[in-house]
Amino acid sequence: MLDKNRLFPADPATRSIAAKLYDSVRDLPIISPHGHTDPQWFADNQPFPNPTALFIQPDHYIFRMLYSQGVSLESLGIPQTDGKQQADPREVWRIFAKHYYLFRGTPTRLWLDYAFQELFGINERLSEANADACYELIDRALQTPDFLPRALFDRFKLEVLATTDAAVDTLEHHQKIKASGWKGRVLPTFRPDAVIDVEFAGFRENLQKLGEVSGEDVSSWKGYLDALRKRRAFFKQNGATATDHGHASALTADLSLSEATALYERIYTGKLKAGDAELFQAQMLTELAGMSVDDGLTMQLHPGSFRNHNTKLYEKFGRDKGADIPTPTEYVRALRPLLSKYGNEANFTFILFTLDESTYSRELAPLAGHYPCLRLGPSWWFHDSPEGMTRFREQATETAGFYNTVGFNDDTRAFLSIPARHDVARRVDSAFLARLVAEHRLDEDEAFALAQDLTVNLVRKAYRL
Amino acid sequence: MLDKNRLFPADPATRSIAAKLYDSVRDLPIISPHGHTDPQWFADNQPFPNPTALFIQPDHYIFRMLYSQGVSLESLGIPQTDGKQQADPREVWRIFAKHYYLFRGTPTRLWLDYAFQELFGINERLSEANADACYELIDRALQTPDFLPRALFDRFKLEVLATTDAAVDTLEHHQKIKASGWKGRVLPTFRPDAVIDVEFAGFRENLQKLGEVSGEDVSSWKGYLDALRKRRAFFKQNGATATDHGHASALTADLSLSEATALYERIYTGKLKAGDAELFQAQMLTELAGMSVDDGLTMQLHPGSFRNHNTKLYEKFGRDKGADIPTPTEYVRALRPLLSKYGNEANFTFILFTLDESTYSRELAPLAGHYPCLRLGPSWWFHDSPEGMTRFREQATETAGFYNTVGFNDDTRAFLSIPARHDVARRVDSAFLARLVAEHRLDEDEAFALAQDLTVNLVRKAYRL
Amino acid sequence: MLDKNRLFPADPATRSIAAKLYDSVRDLPIISPHGHTDPQWFADNQPFPNPTALFIQPDHYIFRMLYSQGVSLESLGIPQTDGKQQADPREVWRIFAKHYYLFRGTPTRLWLDYAFQELFGINERLSEANADACYELIDRALQTPDFLPRALFDRFKLEVLATTDAAVDTLEHHQKIKASGWKGRVLPTFRPDAVIDVEFAGFRENLQKLGEVSGEDVSSWKGYLDALRKRRAFFKQNGATATDHGHASALTADLSLSEATALYERIYTGKLKAGDAELFQAQMLTELAGMSVDDGLTMQLHPGSFRNHNTKLYEKFGRDKGADIPTPTEYVRALRPLLSKYGNEANFTFILFTLDESTYSRELAPLAGHYPCLRLGPSWWFHDSPEGMTRFREQATETAGFYNTVGFNDDTRAFLSIPARHDVARRVDSAFLARLVAEHRLDEDEAFALAQDLTVNLVRKAYRL
Repeated sequence: MLDKNRLFPADPATRSIAAKLYDSVRDLPIISPHGHTDPQWFADNQPFPNPTALFIQPDHYIFRMLYSQGVSLESLGIPQTDGKQQADPREVWRIFAKHYYLFRGTPTRLWLDYAFQELFGINERLSEANADACYELIDRALQTPDFLPRALFDRFKLEVLATTDAAVDTLEHHQKIKASGWKGRVLPTFRPDAVIDVEFAGFRENLQKLGEVSGEDVSSWKGYLDALRKRRAFFKQNGATATDHGHASALTADLSLSEATALYERIYTGKLKAGDAELFQAQMLTELAGMSVDDGLTMQLHPGSFRNHNTKLYEKFGRDKGADIPTPTEYVRALRPLLSKYGNEANFTFILFTLDESTYSRELAPLAGHYPCLRLGPSWWFHDSPEGMTRFREQATETAGFYNTVGFNDDTRAFLSIPARHDVARRVDSAFLARLVAEHRLDEDEAFALAQDLTVNLVRKAYRL
Repeated sequence: MLDKNRLFPADPATRSIAAKLYDSVRDLPIISPHGHTDPQWFADNQPFPNPTALFIQPDHYIFRMLYSQGVSLESLGIPQTDGKQQADPREVWRIFAKHYYLFRGTPTRLWLDYAFQELFGINERLSEANADACYELIDRALQTPDFLPRALFDRFKLEVLATTDAAVDTLEHHQKIKASGWKGRVLPTFRPDAVIDVEFAGFRENLQKLGEVSGEDVSSWKGYLDALRKRRAFFKQNGATATDHGHASALTADLSLSEATALYERIYTGKLKAGDAELFQAQMLTELAGMSVDDGLTMQLHPGSFRNHNTKLYEKFGRDKGADIPTPTEYVRALRPLLSKYGNEANFTFILFTLDESTYSRELAPLAGHYPCLRLGPSWWFHDSPEGMTRFREQATETAGFYNTVGFNDDTRAFLSIPARHDVARRVDSAFLARLVAEHRLDEDEAFALAQDLTVNLVRKAYRL
Repeated sequence: MLDKNRLFPADPATRSIAAKLYDSVRDLPIISPHGHTDPQWFADNQPFPNPTALFIQPDHYIFRMLYSQGVSLESLGIPQTDGKQQADPREVWRIFAKHYYLFRGTPTRLWLDYAFQELFGINERLSEANADACYELIDRALQTPDFLPRALFDRFKLEVLATTDAAVDTLEHHQKIKASGWKGRVLPTFRPDAVIDVEFAGFRENLQKLGEVSGEDVSSWKGYLDALRKRRAFFKQNGATATDHGHASALTADLSLSEATALYERIYTGKLKAGDAELFQAQMLTELAGMSVDDGLTMQLHPGSFRNHNTKLYEKFGRDKGADIPTPTEYVRALRPLLSKYGNEANFTFILFTLDESTYSRELAPLAGHYPCLRLGPSWWFHDSPEGMTRFREQATETAGFYNTVGFNDDTRAFLSIPARHDVARRVDSAFLARLVAEHRLDEDEAFALAQDLTVNLVRKAYRL
C-alpha cells in the first residue's frame, strides 16, 4: 500500500536525491516537543480500548470531514457534554470505512494508511468490504503487550514526547511515569490559557484553583503573577522545557504597573470594560515572555484560531470538535510591545506558529530573520500536510533561512499517527532539499547536514532538550 | 497549434498518467451550472453577427488587457452608455490581432487558440498578417447552420447550460426554448442583486417592478420577502436549481423581526442610516439561505469584487468593462450569523466563491471541511486559469478534500470559450491528480474515479441536476 | 562552485529549453533602473576599502541574518549613530565565514557565491577554514585597477545604473561623472520622502533646505509644490527619468485646494491633527502623480514596510539595519483617488511594488491589467529571490500578462551583487518561460521574444531609457 518513494518528486534525478536524504534521517529518533497525547496512557500503561476509540473519536481531523458530508457526530459516538455517548464502535468503524474515499488527497489518509500498514500489517486500502476484518485485526492487536502505550512509545523511537498541561495541573501522571522507573521521556508543557482567557469555560474557578495549588493570593496582580511563576517552577521541576499559548490573536501589550494592576482588578472582579479581555491576554503575553527570560522556558505562541465557530455543535459536544476556523492574523504591529521589551534578549526563545499562510513570507520570516529571540514553528494544524509543509519551506526559507526554524511538531492527540506524521515531515523536507540540490542552489553535503538539523538538531536546541 | 499534451507536467511519468486521466474525461458532456450566456441566443437561434461582436466586444478579459496597454475602448467599438458605438468590426479585429502577443501566458490565449483551431480549423497563431483572413474565415462560418447557437450547443455536448437572470425577469426566452421542442437544457438562475443592493443602478425601479411581477406589496418587509419567494418558485417552475448572489463582502446578519422590519422600511423609503445598505445585504443573505432551506435551490455567493473602480470609464461605458477589482475578503466572522442559523441543515447547499486566494487554505477549506451545507466553488474569474486552478487544488484539497468542491464553472458570457474552458479545467485537474499518483499520494484507480467526480458527478449533485 | 544549470528545473526537457532561453539573454547589458549604490563611487573612482566594508557592513540582508542568530552588530562593526564603529575587518570576516551556513537556501548565498567565483575566481565555498585566504585574495584584488568602481561598471556591462537621491540633493556626484567624460550612465532618481513624511528624521530641516535649494517659499502650499516641481526639473536636467516613493501604505487622497492648503499649513507649522501625517502623504502621492503627468518622470511606489521595528537597535544603529518588516498592504481602495484622477492618462507610467505577496493575484495584477498607467515592479526586497520571483510570475502573469511588468530591478546598495542578481532574474525568468513552453502554453519563438522583453525591452520602455 505504501510506496517507498511516496511524497518524493516524480523527476528521477530529484527523486533519487530525495530518497538518499530521507534514508539518512528515516531511522533517527522522534522528538515530539509539542502535542496533546494523554500522559495517563504512559502512567497507567493500559491497553487502548478499541479501534474506534483510538482512531476516530479523539481525532477531529477525521470526524470534521465526515460531518462536513452529512455524517452526524451522534452516529460516530462522539461524547456529548451531557455525558451521553452512544453508537456501537463496530458500527462507527463501518461508517468511517464506507466514507474513507472522502480523505483522498488529505494528510489524514497518509497518516491512517501508514498506521494501518506499518503498525498492524494491513496491506489493503480500508473499505466498506474489509471494514470488519480490519476492525477485528486492530482490536486484537490492541490487547497484546506490543500495543500497550509504553511499548508503542519505545517502538516509535520516541526520544521525547511533550504533553500539554493546564497551569493548575497536578502533573501526577508525569510524576507516576518518573516514579515507575520506565525510561520513556514524557514531559509536561505549561499552558496557562484557562487562567488568562476570561472567556475560557470556568475561568473564575480556574483562577480560584490557581490560587489554591500555588498558595498565592490571586486577588492581586502581584499574587497572580507569583502564582504563575510558582507553577512554572513546578512544571520545570517536573521536566518541562517549554510553555504554550493559544490566543485569538498575536496581540501583545506593555502596560505600566498601575495600568496592569487596575486591569487585573477588573479581570478578577469581573467588572470588565470593553476590550479588557483582549488587552489582558495581550499584557499577559509580555509578562510571560519576561518570565521565560528569567526561567529559560521556551515560549510558544499559536494565535489565530476562531474557536467553537459552530454554536449548536459546541453546545451539544463541547470544545475541539473540528469547528475551530483560522482567521487573518497580524504579527508585526501586534508583537511589537513584547519584542520591544524582550526581542533582543539572548536567553529567550520565542516560537511563533500561524494558521494564516499569507504571513510566512510577509511577516513571520522577516521577523524571525531579524529578532534573536524568534524562531518559526513548523506549518501547523490545517497546514501540517505535504503541500502545507512545502509552502512553509518555499515561503519562509529565503528570508528566515533554515536555522530560524525548529524542526517538526506533530501537535496531535492521535498517538498512533505520530510516526506517520514525522515520516511525512522527513519525506517532505527531503523532497524540498532535493529540489534545491537538483537545481544547484545547495550543495549535496549541505543538504545532508540540513536533513539532520531539520530532523533532530534544531528541535533539540529550540526546546532545550 | 494545440499540442495534445498541453497543460500536463513535463515530467514524462507524470505526463503519461495525466494523459490517461484526461482521456477518460475528455469526451464527457459539459455541465455548465453557472454562466452569463444570453438565453435569447437559444430561443431565437439566429446567427452570431460577426467575429468581433462574438469574440471581442462582449469579453472583458480581452478588452481590459488591450485597454491596459493604451488601446481605447472607443477604437474597439465597445458600446457606450449614450448608445454610441462606432468602429468597423474588421478594423477592431485588426487591432486585436496586432496586440495578440499581449495575451501570452494568459488563459484568454488558451481559450482563443482552442476556439480558433477546434471550431474554425485555424492552425496558425493569430497575427497582424493573417488577421483579415481569419476574420473572413470565421465570419463566413458564422453564417452557416453549423454555427447557429443551438447547433453549437449540441456540438459542445452541453448537458446543461445555466444562465443568470434578474429576479424580475420574465424568463420568456427560457419558456420559448422549452416550447420550441428543442431538447437543449438551458436553465435560469435566480439572481436578485438588483433588488437587494441599494446602490445597484435603478434600485427603486427594480423594487417597483418586483412588486408588479409578483403581485405582492413590497412596501412591507413581509411583502418584499413574499415577492422574492414567489419569484423563486417561478424560477424553479422554469427549471432553475440555483440562486446566485454577488455581494461586495461575505457579511451576513441575523436581525430580529422588528430590527429587520425597521431596516427594510428605511431601505424602502430611502431614509438610510450609515451602514444600512451593507446591513441589508447581510440580512438578506441569511433570509435567502432560509428560503433555500425551504425550496431546495442551491445558493451561490460570489463576494469581494470592488465594482466599477474606474469612474470615468464607468460613466462612459457602464458596468462590466474590466474595471472590477478584487479586494481582501473575510469569511469566518462574516458568515457566522448565517451559518449559526442554517449551517447544519441537511437540505441546504451553499457554494462559496472567492477572489481572494489567501482565503483558500485559511478560511474556506476549514469552513467547508466542517459545515455540512458548505461547498467550495471552483477558482473564479481572474483565477479561472491553469495556475489559479492548480493553486485552488493545492491549497483547498488537504483540508476540504475533493468532495467538498463542486466541479468546474465557466462563468462566462463568451459562448465560444465554453468548451475551451472546460477542456482547460479537465486538463489541470488531470495534471493535479497525476502528480498525486506519481508521488504515491493517491492510488491510480482512485484518480480515475476522482476525474469522473470532478468532471460530472460533483456538479450534478451540488446543483441538483 | 556554480553549476551552469543552476536555478533551472530538474526535468531534462524543461531544463534544456530554459538553458537555451538563458543563453539568449545571458550576455545582454544590465539595465538597473532602481537601486541604492553611491554615485560618489563613480564620481571619485577610488578603490573599495576592504572585503568587509564592501560585502558585509552595508548589506542588511547579511547582518540581519547573523543578528537573528545571536551575532551582535557591534561585533560586525556596524556603524553606530554616535559615530562609534569598532571591530577589525578581518575578524568580522571570520565571524561571517563561520556563519556562512546560515545562508543556505537564501538568495544572499546565491549572490555571494556568484561574486566570489565570477569576480574573484574563488572556487571553494566560504568557510571558517578558508576565511582568511578569501579575505586576502579579495582585499588584494580590490586594490587593483580592475576593481575600481568604473572598471567594474564596465565589466558588469551596465547600460544604465540609477541611484536614489534625496529631493534636496545637489547631484554633484552625478555632475562630476558627466563632466569627467567617462561614458558610464549613472542617473539620479528623485526621492522626496524626507520632505513629505513628517516622521522622517529631520523633517523640518529638510523642508527648510528644500526652500533654500529651490529658491521657493515653502511656507505656503503653492510654494512647496513649486519647490518640488523645480527640483524635479533639476533632476531631469541631470538625467533622471523616474521618481521613487517609499510610503508606509499605498493610501492616496484627492483633497480640494482649500483642504490641501489647510493641511499643509498644519504640516508646516507642526500643529498636526490626528491622521494628518498619513493624509498628507496620501495627498502628496496624487500631487506627485500629477507632476509626473506633466513632466513625464516615471513614478514608482514602494509601500508596506514598517520601518525601524526594533526600537533599541534603531536608537543605537539608526535606519536600514534589517529591522524593517512588511505589513499587509491594501491597494484597491487606497489607490482609487489617484487612479480616478490620473489612471487613464496616456503620458503617465506608475510602477507599483509590494511586500505583500497576497496582493499579486488579488489586487495588483487586476489593477495593472486594466489601468493604462499602471505597471508592476518585479518581486521586491525579501521577495527578490528564486521562489519569490517564481511566485510573482505565477500569480501575476495570467491576469496582467507579461507586458504590464517592467523587467528586473536589483534595488541594492551592494554593488558587487548586481550581476549576480540580474543573473538570478534571467535564470528564473528563463525557467518560468521554459515551463510554459514545455507545457505547450507558449510557443518557443514567443518565449525567446519574451526573454528579450523581460531582460531589456520592458525596462527601457517603462523607465523611458
